[in-house]
Amino acid sequence: MDAQIKNFTSPFEKGELITPEQAMQLAIEVAKLGAPYVSPNPLVGCVVVNANHEFINYGFHKKFGQDHAEADALKKLSPQEIKGSTFYVTLEPCAHEGKTPSCAKTLAKHPVKKVVFGLIDPNPLVSGQGAHILIQAGIQTEEYQGPLKQSLNELCEVFLKNYRDKKIFIAMKVASSLDGQVALKSGESKWITSAASRTYVHELRSYYDAIIVGRNTIEVDDPSLNIRHPEINKENKIVVIDPSGKILDQIAGGKEFNFLKVNKKENIFFGVSKKNHDSDFQQIEFSNLNDLTEKLWHLKIRSAFIEGGAKTYSLFLEAGLVHRLYLFLASSIIGNQNGVSWTNAFGITSLDSKLRLKSTDVLKFGSDILITGQLN
Amino acid sequence: MDAQIKNFTSPFEKGELITPEQAMQLAIEVAKLGAPYVSPNPLVGCVVVNANHEFINYGFHKKFGQDHAEADALKKLSPQEIKGSTFYVTLEPCAHEGKTPSCAKTLAKHPVKKVVFGLIDPNPLVSGQGAHILIQAGIQTEEYQGPLKQSLNELCEVFLKNYRDKKIFIAMKVASSLDGQVALKSGESKWITSAASRTYVHELRSYYDAIIVGRNTIEVDDPSLNIRHPEINKENKIVVIDPSGKILDQIAGGKEFNFLKVNKKENIFFGVSKKNHDSDFQQIEFSNLNDLTEKLWHLKIRSAFIEGGAKTYSLFLEAGLVHRLYLFLASSIIGNQNGVSWTNAFGITSLDSKLRLKSTDVLKFGSDILITGQLN
Repeated sequence: MDAQIKNFTSPFEKGELITPEQAMQLAIEVAKLGAPYVSPNPLVGCVVVNANHEFINYGFHKKFGQDHAEADALKKLSPQEIKGSTFYVTLEPCAHEGKTPSCAKTLAKHPVKKVVFGLIDPNPLVSGQGAHILIQAGIQTEEYQGPLKQSLNELCEVFLKNYRDKKIFIAMKVASSLDGQVALKSGESKWITSAASRTYVHELRSYYDAIIVGRNTIEVDDPSLNIRHPEINKENKIVVIDPSGKILDQIAGGKEFNFLKVNKKENIFFGVSKKNHDSDFQQIEFSNLNDLTEKLWHLKIRSAFIEGGAKTYSLFLEAGLVHRLYLFLASSIIGNQNGVSWTNAFGITSLDSKLRLKSTDVLKFGSDILITGQLN
Repeated sequence: MDAQIKNFTSPFEKGELITPEQAMQLAIEVAKLGAPYVSPNPLVGCVVVNANHEFINYGFHKKFGQDHAEADALKKLSPQEIKGSTFYVTLEPCAHEGKTPSCAKTLAKHPVKKVVFGLIDPNPLVSGQGAHILIQAGIQTEEYQGPLKQSLNELCEVFLKNYRDKKIFIAMKVASSLDGQVALKSGESKWITSAASRTYVHELRSYYDAIIVGRNTIEVDDPSLNIRHPEINKENKIVVIDPSGKILDQIAGGKEFNFLKVNKKENIFFGVSKKNHDSDFQQIEFSNLNDLTEKLWHLKIRSAFIEGGAKTYSLFLEAGLVHRLYLFLASSIIGNQNGVSWTNAFGITSLDSKLRLKSTDVLKFGSDILITGQLN
C-alpha cells in the first residue's frame, strides 16, 4: 500500500528566487510529510535550486523502502534542470546501498554543481562518506551551518536517538488545564482540550511507531487508540502498561475495551510484571521502565508516544525516559483541590533538579496552546 | 512630577499611507504608554491621518490630570494639518469638563473632517453625548466596527469594570512550571521564571493601583513589592492579606520585612479579620474577599495585581474575583509530588464548571511563555 501523504503546496513557484535558508526550511517541511511512514529511516527532505538560486523542485523520503529524498527530487527534474543545480538536503546523502541505491553515488553521476547537507550522518561507520563520494565526483559539498541547525537536529531527533544511543525515542503528550490538571479525582476527564487539538494528536500518533498508555487510562477513558486522521492511513503498535495484569484479567472476564475492537491483535502488547499464560495476547515481562523500553527496542519499536495517564507520565519522567513533550493547554482552570495533576507521582527535592524543556515551540490550536520541546 | 513614559517610536513616518486598522492599532499601542499613570481615567490613544489617509501624528493620555489623547494630538498638529483630518480615538471623546476641557467640544472648534472612536463611553450619563457634540459641529462621526473591537475592549477593561460594575478590577500573576507548580513544599520557590519575565512583571505591576499578596508569600519570599523598571517611576499601593495579624505581630516583634523598607507606610495596607489597635499601620477589617475588595474600592483603589501565593490565588479564583490572568510558564517540570500547585486550594466538582480564559494571548519571554486572558 502506498503512503497517503498530507496535502502540501510549495510556498515557492518554479523560477522564484529563494535564499539558502528558505531552501533548507522548505527541505525540512517536506521531510516531515513522510513522518508517518519512514521509520526506522530518518525523515529527509531536499530542495533543488538552479545556478541563479531560483527554486526548481523538491523531494522527500515518503516511505520506508521507497525513494530517498534526493532520488525523489531527481525524478522530477529534466537533464537541463539538473545541470549546474544545487541540492539542499536535510541529511548527508547516504553512502551505502540498502533497499535503495546510494544517494551520494546517484548524485555523483549527475552534473550537479553543489550539495548542501543539514546534518552529517550520525552513523560513525559511514559518517562523512557520502560527502566524500560527492567531493571525489567534483561536486562542491558542504555541511550547512546556519540558524536552522537546531531545526535540522529536531527533524532527525528520533533517528539520532536511535542511532547514537541505540535506544527508543519517547514523546509524551499531555492535555491539561492551565494549572496542570488532566482530570478530576472523581474520574471525569473528557474533554480537556478542543477538537482541533485532538485532530493534531492523531497526526502526532502517526509520527511514532507505538502508543503507550497506562492501565488506568484504559479503565477510565476506554480510548480507541487508533489513528483517525483524514490524510493519514497508518496502524500503530499499542503498548498497555498493565503490571498487575488487571486489564488482561478483565478481557478474560469478557470486558470489551474499545482499543481491542479497532486495532489488530498483532499490534497490541501488554507490559506485565509476570506473564499470564492463559492469555494469548502478546506480553512483555518487565521489571522497570528502563527494562520495558529496552524490550520495546528489541521488538524493533523505534519510537513511542505516551498518552497517559498521570501515573504513567510521572513514572516515565522519573525514569528520565522522555525525550519530547507535547503539552496541550486548554484555556481553562480546573483547580488542584479536586483535580489530578499530570505530575502527581513525580517529585524533585530541589529546584536545581527540575526538568528543563529545550528548544521550546509554541503553537495555537483554537483556544488551546501547544507547548513542545525536547527533554533530556 | 511628570510621568516617565516608556520609549516609543512610531512605526509610521509622517505622510505614510495607513489603513483604518493600522491607525486604530497604533492608537491602542500609544494608549498603553499611559498605563502606569492614568488611573482612575481610562487609557486612551489617538491617531490623526489626513484626507489621503496618510499618517500625521498621534497623541495619548499620559497621566491623570494632564491632557487627554485628543488634546495631546492637537498640540502636535499645525492648523494646516488639522484641516480635513480624521481622528482615530480608542474611546468616544468626552463630553464633560473635568480636570481638563471636554474633548468633544475642543474637536468641535477645529476643522476636523471625521472622528472614528473605538468604544462608546460606558458612563450611561454621558454615553453618546461626545459623539452628539461632534455631529452637531458637522464632523462625520462613527463608532469603529472592525476586527480590533475586542482589543479596544481589553484596552479599557479596567475602566469598563470600574464604570459598569462599580468594582475593582483584579489581575492575577502566576509564575509556574509547565505542570503548574509555583514552589516546593519545602518552601523553595526562587526563581521559577527568567529575568526577562520578571522585568515585565515590574511593568505589569505599574498598570494597576495596588499589589495584593498573602501572608505566606511575605513570610517565605520576603519580596520588596516595589516597581523596579528602568522606564517607569511609580509607587503602588500594597495590600497584605494577613487575616490573623501574624505579619503585624512579627513587625511589632522587630522583624524587618523588605517591603517595609522600600515602600512608604502610607501606601501599605493590611487586610485583617480583627484590627490590631497596637499597630499604627493602616488596616482593613474584612470578613471575606468580596468584603475586602469592596473596601479597597472605597479606598479609591480601582485595580489590583495579585502576586501570590497559592492560597491567595486559589481563594480569589474561588470567589470569582479575578478578571485577568497573567500566567508565566517556565520551560520546566517540577512535579506535583513535592511541589505546590498554584490552585491547590481551588476546586470544582464537575468539568462543566471549570473557569474559562477568554481572548487568550501568548507571548514569549526568552524561554518563558506568557499566557494572558480575561476571566469572568
